[in-house]
Formats: sequence, C-alpha cells, structure tokens
Amino acid sequence: MITASVTATLSREACVARDAADQLRCFRDRFVIPDGLIYLDGNSLGPMPREAASVLGRTIEREWGQELIRSWNSAGWFEMPGRLGDRVGAVIGAAPGQTVVCDATSINLYKAIHTAIGLRPDRNVILAEEESFPTDLYIIEGAMKCAARPMRRRLIGGDGSSIAAQLDRDVAVVVLSHVNYRTGALLDIAEITQQIHDAGALVIWDLCHSAGVIEIGFDRHAVDFAVGCTYKYLNGGPGAPAYIAVAKTHQAAAEQPLSGWWGHAAPFAFDREFRPDQGIKRFLCGTQPILSMRGVEVALDAMEGVDVVALREKSLALTDLFMARIAALLPELEIVTPRPPALRGSQVAIAFDQGYPVVQAMIERGVIGDFRSPNIMRFGFAPLYVRFGDVWDAAEILAGCIRDEVWREPRFNRVLGVT
Amino acid sequence: MITASVTATLSREACVARDAADQLRCFRDRFVIPDGLIYLDGNSLGPMPREAASVLGRTIEREWGQELIRSWNSAGWFEMPGRLGDRVGAVIGAAPGQTVVCDATSINLYKAIHTAIGLRPDRNVILAEEESFPTDLYIIEGAMKCAARPMRRRLIGGDGSSIAAQLDRDVAVVVLSHVNYRTGALLDIAEITQQIHDAGALVIWDLCHSAGVIEIGFDRHAVDFAVGCTYKYLNGGPGAPAYIAVAKTHQAAAEQPLSGWWGHAAPFAFDREFRPDQGIKRFLCGTQPILSMRGVEVALDAMEGVDVVALREKSLALTDLFMARIAALLPELEIVTPRPPALRGSQVAIAFDQGYPVVQAMIERGVIGDFRSPNIMRFGFAPLYVRFGDVWDAAEILAGCIRDEVWREPRFNRVLGVT
Repeated sequence: MITASVTATLSREACVARDAADQLRCFRDRFVIPDGLIYLDGNSLGPMPREAASVLGRTIEREWGQELIRSWNSAGWFEMPGRLGDRVGAVIGAAPGQTVVCDATSINLYKAIHTAIGLRPDRNVILAEEESFPTDLYIIEGAMKCAARPMRRRLIGGDGSSIAAQLDRDVAVVVLSHVNYRTGALLDIAEITQQIHDAGALVIWDLCHSAGVIEIGFDRHAVDFAVGCTYKYLNGGPGAPAYIAVAKTHQAAAEQPLSGWWGHAAPFAFDREFRPDQGIKRFLCGTQPILSMRGVEVALDAMEGVDVVALREKSLALTDLFMARIAALLPELEIVTPRPPALRGSQVAIAFDQGYPVVQAMIERGVIGDFRSPNIMRFGFAPLYVRFGDVWDAAEILAGCIRDEVWREPRFNRVLGVT
Repeated sequence: MITASVTATLSREACVARDAADQLRCFRDRFVIPDGLIYLDGNSLGPMPREAASVLGRTIEREWGQELIRSWNSAGWFEMPGRLGDRVGAVIGAAPGQTVVCDATSINLYKAIHTAIGLRPDRNVILAEEESFPTDLYIIEGAMKCAARPMRRRLIGGDGSSIAAQLDRDVAVVVLSHVNYRTGALLDIAEITQQIHDAGALVIWDLCHSAGVIEIGFDRHAVDFAVGCTYKYLNGGPGAPAYIAVAKTHQAAAEQPLSGWWGHAAPFAFDREFRPDQGIKRFLCGTQPILSMRGVEVALDAMEGVDVVALREKSLALTDLFMARIAALLPELEIVTPRPPALRGSQVAIAFDQGYPVVQAMIERGVIGDFRSPNIMRFGFAPLYVRFGDVWDAAEILAGCIRDEVWREPRFNRVLGVT
C-alpha cells in the first residue's frame, strides 16, 4: 500500500508541485497556520481548527452565558464524553461504545493498569519499555502501590523486537507506546499485540504519538486497552481531555478505583453504593471541562472525511523527504528515527549536542520544532497541514542554523520553563 | 458579626431599595445574567463572567491559534495550576503553596483520601456522612480498594452533631461536606476540625457548596485537606477543573498514587523514576485543560476585591428573606434547610412531592432552580449577583406555580437527562 519514497523529489519546485497535487491539501485550510510559520510541533500541540473560535465562542456566550445550567441537556454537554469517545474511537478503529474522552492521559492509564491487573489475578509483572514517556513509568509505580497484591515493574530495553523475549507467565499487562516520543520509532501493534495475547497477558497501548497519523486498528488487532491525548495530532487544544478505549469484552469485569459518579450506572439516582455503568462509562469519574471538550469536538470536525491511509502515506512521504534533505545537507547529523517506513511514526528526531540552541534559533527563523533533553531535536510532520514545501524550507533553515553556529549566541541558550 | 435577619423587609419596594444600597452591587455587573432571568442555580453552575468571552477569545485565537506551543511559556499556561491554586487558596483562607487547580473534584478527593490513609498508618476507618454527595462515598470505596491495608468505611447518620461520637482511635480520616448539597445544612468547620484532631484523625473538607460564599479559614482552623469544584459559586465555567488544598505540614510526607509527570520534581528532566515535587505540585498528575483553566482565572478576576464577610452577610440575608417569604406565602411547604444562620449555607431546599414539575414550570416562568431526587427543590442564592428583588419575585413565582398546580401539565413532568 505504502509507496512513500520521494527522495527523487529533490527540488523545491517539485515539492511545491507535489503540494498542489496533494489530495489532502483541502485539510490545511481547516486550520489556522500563522503566516510565514512552518509548524513542526503538532506532535506536541496541534494548531487551532479554523472553526474553533466561532464554535467555542458560541459555547461560551450562548451555552454557558445565556442557557446556563440548561445546556447540560440542550447543548448535549452531558453526552460529550461518550459522543466524542465514539468519534475518537472511529479514528483509532474502535467500534462505538468502547471509548470515552475524559481526564488526562496519565489518569486514564492509571485506570487501565488497575483494571488489567484485576483481569489477570494470577500474574504479578507489569512490563514496560525503559524508553517510555516517563509519566507512563511513574503511573505504573503509582498503580502498583494500589494493587490488591504485590506487583513488580519490569523494564524492557532496546527496541520493540525484544518484547517477545520478556513475555513469560508472570506478565499480567504490557504498557507500550505505539510511537516513541523521543525517537519516533513505531512498534508493530498487530504483531506485538498477538505475541502478548499468545503469552496470556493484556496490552495497553499509549497512542499519544500515533492517533491521527497512523491507522491503529484497535478492534482489528483485538487491542485490550488504549489511552492517548487529544492535543497532539488530534488538534483538540492545549491540555484538552484525553481518552481511554477498553475492548467490549473486558468492560463487564473491569474495575477501576476512580469510581466517581459519572461512572455510576445511574449518576442522578444518587445511590449511596457505587454500581458501575454496564459499559465504557464506568471509566468516567467526575465532570469534564466542557470548554476544552468542545475544542476536541471542533478538532474532530476538522478531520472529518479524512482517509487515514492517505494520511499515513503523506506522513511517510514528508518524513522521508526531511530525512533525505538532512542527509544531503548535513551528513554529519545523526538521525535517530528509523528509516524503514514500517518502523517510524510521523516525526523525525535528530541527536545533536547543540540541539537546544539550534531549535531556539530555528523558531526565530520561523520553524517551530522542539527539543527533548539531553540532545534530541524533534520535528513533527502532521500530514493534515504540513506541506512538502515546508519540509524543504525547514531543512534549509536547520542547515543554515548549523552553518551559522547559532549556539554561539547567548540568547539561544537561555532555558525557558518548558522546552 | 452577622446580622442577617431582614424578615422585616417585607415589601418588594424595600427589597429593591436594599439592592440599591447593597455594597456588593457592582459585582453583579461583572457577570452576564440573561435579561429577565432570575438565576438561582449558581450552586450548580455559576454564570459567565462578563470578561470571559474576550479573555477566552484571546486564549483561543491568540495564544493557541497564533503563538501555539510557545504559549506554555509566554502565556503562562505551565504555571496555571499553581497560580490559580494560590488564588483559590486566598478564597478559602489557605496561604500560598498549598492549593492547586487541577482534575475533577472526585479525582482530587481520591488523592486526598489515599494520602490521609498513608499518614495515619495505625488506623483503619474512613468516616463519612451517609448524606454526602454520593461521589464522595463512591470515591471512598475506590480508595479503600487501593489502600495498602484493609480499611473500613463507617457512615455517620443525622447531622454534624453526631460526628464527635464516632471519633474513636480507629478513625484515620473523616470526609465531610462543609455544606450539604441537598439540604444546604452547614457544618462548623472550626469545631469539627478540632474534634477530629483531638481524636488524632485527619479531615478532608469538601468545599463544593461553600467556597465563594462562606469564609472557610483553611489555615486558621488547621484544616488538613480540602477539595472542591470551581464551577459553582466560583463561576469558573461548565466542568472547570477542581482544586485540592493540602496543609504545608503534610506535604513532604504525602504520597498519592496518581503520580504523573506534572507531580514530578523536574517534569522536563524525563527521569525514569518518580521523584515527587517538594510541595503542593506533587498533587498534580497530567496536563490540565487550558481553555477551561482560563475560565477559572477569569472568574477569580471577577471576584477580585470582594469582602468574604460581606458576601456571607448578604448570602444569609438572601436566604433568610426567601425562607420568610415562603413561610408567609406557602406555610404548608417543608423548608429542609436549617433556619439558624450558623447552620446553613447559601441555598434553600424545600421538600415537595411535586418538586420536579414545579422546578420545570418555574424555569418556564423565568426562575432557574433545580431538583434533587426524590423530592428536593434547591435554590441557590449567590450573593455576587442575586438581588433581594429577585428573591422576592422568585418566591412569588414559586407560589404561583403551586397555586396553579403546574404538575397537572404533562410537559412539566417530562424527565430530562440531567435534572
């Protein structure tokens, strides 16, 4: 299916021509991309959908301001976690009734881990990658303290190929990032899920860096649990609520301890005893932030009608072009992201000791990427709005920053609060 | 201090005159109250601050739309949980560094219960009121499942006076609502906190129905933990993030299992092991919904400069007037809310078997209150924007609905999703 190599397209004109012919080009217009900016940080915070201001303006002024409490019914606020959940479910390949939008990714991971431990009562190991986004490791620590029996965390080094070797009869659940947040390396969700199931364990996939740019196939691969945020490639807005997907087959037996009233079978019956909802809503806890939820809805609207296969194809073509240009312009740089298409997500990571000041200087020159300690420059290529011409220009600007040795400028070394 | 009785003010003209002389009247202009509406549901969802549309519009269009990822630094997003926390702290009488705005109330309660259990390792009972808002009871259930040792939940019947009798050496922590969500009954936070401390236990106060209308004195009464939402009397917007306050003295030893990266001492160091922040930030978990957080900030701005003593005085005067008018117009109705000022919050609850259709009919006639199963009509009197004239009119309209026997109209009996 995927025919991504465009390394032959080695001229700016060819890039621009390719943008003109891009079947996804209409989607760029659905987002606000500031003039003159090349935005390669959609893997951290997606841009604003063009409709966001007006839809949110109506939510604020009309629904909150004029309708007030009545909007819980009349504006559908009450149903948002499930309604948006089903739409995120469609993006990750989960049939309706298996996904809710709520809380933060870390909190949803906590719910999933606790549930998975309960579903495998005769096993005592949680397996995770050493190179996970750290909060996943921290939450595993927290969930272990709360397990009904002693659990151990076992860490996997290296790449995805070493997971199978770790799967013994002690492993209850494996927590994996579909795409590594630093390197951009992609795991094979089909094969690894199968291996984990063959070993009798459950899997939780963290989709933060893949949902919205890669086909997930939650149902097709019989994934047990998935969690992820909505503010990266799903463009839901800063800190927008996350999601959790739980396979239908696990729902009835699922027990998660954040058993708040929104997870009750009848929240407005005000029973004294907790009786969980029959389905996915048992993974809800408290009231969700409606303004930010509406941001997620607008963003899903902006993706409506997109072909995920085409997205993936363009994403690979963008990253392929960027890596080819870097290899051509800056052969001394170490590209950390795997080159084979089947092994990479939608970002390119470059290890460079002066990465921090280079990223700062690139921002000044109109290209936003980001930096992850100690030495990784990350560039995210969101196929909904990044153009081939942008990729060409970004590589040139990166090369210019290195040629100019921008790290000699003190202002680019000033550390900001969040990098 | 409190000289609340205005039962002598028994004419509409006197009410209007009192509004004209009200020292808090300027605050009403800081909120949008739809024309012709008497809004007595601010104990469920506060109205929109007048500045909300423009401030949030700037957050959406400028900070998200134009500045994108840079706003985590340049717009202060990163510091919002602590910055807003300190401001909520000021409202509840907690010195800076003890409060963060984050997550849902239920989730914050879970963190507080888990922490409290850990701080009293030789005790095994969690005490709570039978009449708590149910999610508090559900979360206690969930937290007990996750405790490192077997815990029991013991429920207190009746009113606050029976708490002392339950305080034995088994009680680790007591979870109490400062104001009961149904009846509006107020507990004596000073006396009860002292009793609990004298018994060697810790207390968690749920301030959902008191913060913003009653002085709390978190520090003055040496409260251990408090949680609450920001969308009722704090007017932060639908589902806006909640808060948790933890006394400085407990922070260093506090362990809560939702140990996400925002609670880490150095979130951007990306360590593999969790090392909690030294202070209140260890109660953070994941990324917060910034648009909804900004709503909280605007709402705190709208309260800026208010005198909490004056708020409480007006609140009592409003509820006193309403109860006096109900007693005069509808002597057959049962007012559930305690009459003594020291025993009630800022709402009036009336038990009436036809309460549901009456509340629906009142909405049609321009008065929004709400209904809590099985038979409670609730009316919240937020002193920031409710006027004495509104109280007069609301009582008249309630009396009219009952006189007209509106429950005979089928349309008022139609049950909505959320009531």
